[in-house]
Amino acid sequence: MVLDGPDGGGKTTQARCAVECLERRGYEVVHLREPGGTAIGEEIRRILLDPAHTTMRAETETLLYLAARMQLVREVIEPALERGAAVVCERFIYSTIAYQSAHGDVTGEQIRSIWSTIAPRVQPDRVLFLDVDPDVGLERLEGARDRMEALGAAFHRRVYENYRSMAAAWPDLIETIDASQPVERVSNAVRAAIDEVLSNREDEVVTNE
Amino acid sequence: MVLDGPDGGGKTTQARCAVECLERRGYEVVHLREPGGTAIGEEIRRILLDPAHTTMRAETETLLYLAARMQLVREVIEPALERGAAVVCERFIYSTIAYQSAHGDVTGEQIRSIWSTIAPRVQPDRVLFLDVDPDVGLERLEGARDRMEALGAAFHRRVYENYRSMAAAWPDLIETIDASQPVERVSNAVRAAIDEVLSNREDEVVTNE
Repeated sequence: MVLDGPDGGGKTTQARCAVECLERRGYEVVHLREPGGTAIGEEIRRILLDPAHTTMRAETETLLYLAARMQLVREVIEPALERGAAVVCERFIYSTIAYQSAHGDVTGEQIRSIWSTIAPRVQPDRVLFLDVDPDVGLERLEGARDRMEALGAAFHRRVYENYRSMAAAWPDLIETIDASQPVERVSNAVRAAIDEVLSNREDEVVTNE
Repeated sequence: MVLDGPDGGGKTTQARCAVECLERRGYEVVHLREPGGTAIGEEIRRILLDPAHTTMRAETETLLYLAARMQLVREVIEPALERGAAVVCERFIYSTIAYQSAHGDVTGEQIRSIWSTIAPRVQPDRVLFLDVDPDVGLERLEGARDRMEALGAAFHRRVYENYRSMAAAWPDLIETIDASQPVERVSNAVRAAIDEVLSNREDEVVTNE
């Protein structure tokens, strides 16, 4: 299960809700936040978010995000799934497509192509797109902004439109949740999505028997 | 112009020879060593070569090398070529194909596909493959070995075979130079290759007029 969307959409809050919900249903849950989540990934994260790196190009940024993610997939996600745990991940490849293609030098299609070349079989059950207007989302952020957050309003507007396009293009994978609603209503939608994924899985198990 | 090949083939010595040769012919020369060559690239290099990173996966390694290289291409190589300078680069995409595919988890074809997706128009005039048997090459190395150098003899044998395969597959691009010869004879071959590239370029200029 992936929670994704612009900054300020409440991903961390709702990821905790998803974790709780899955644990109540008896799952071991691994809760991850991208980029990072491994020692190597955290070092990559530091390079990516350092506000001093003003010369970083979109292509470099893209490949660094994908590098951190591959390490996370191989070192943490795949072993967790293999032992039957549920994985709740804040941000995934959808973030890279939305953000890095918003610079204009790399397209979403290029990013998707690279990811599917290096990680052809890695796909979440469901992606919850926490849909919040970027002006509202950025206002919700507190404290110092990292290199990505500090990019201008027009950039974050493009990021948002990229998320909307993906949700429209991949409706079976991406579920849009209105994150401007009161937090408890968003949480209800998250829990409903989890129940649906789990019941689909049970159907599959029954079908396979 | 790229100088590439296994460790211990004399890339740095011959790159200096190439620089000297090009400068004598009136060129501004930019001499680069991969990975690194930019502030961001040097930070990526530190992650890559840190012997403590024993859990790094081949896919992560591949994407980190490509990230450092993209930064170098955009920040240094393209501006240099645009102002008419010659670029001499120790290692390039050929190293990533040879080394990272030798782990067995990523193929050379995947690496080439990712690179051509993100950097479709980046191609050197000529690649000089300094051909040295990996057993001989590794013996020539002095001092502490970094994470890549410390991999076993079988790994370095596969790297070597990957270089040989590329040289066979792309004979118009890659010129093999026997690097087991005395250094002055290798340098003569490097100078001859430069003269050939430059005379091809002059022909092109004449043809274009």
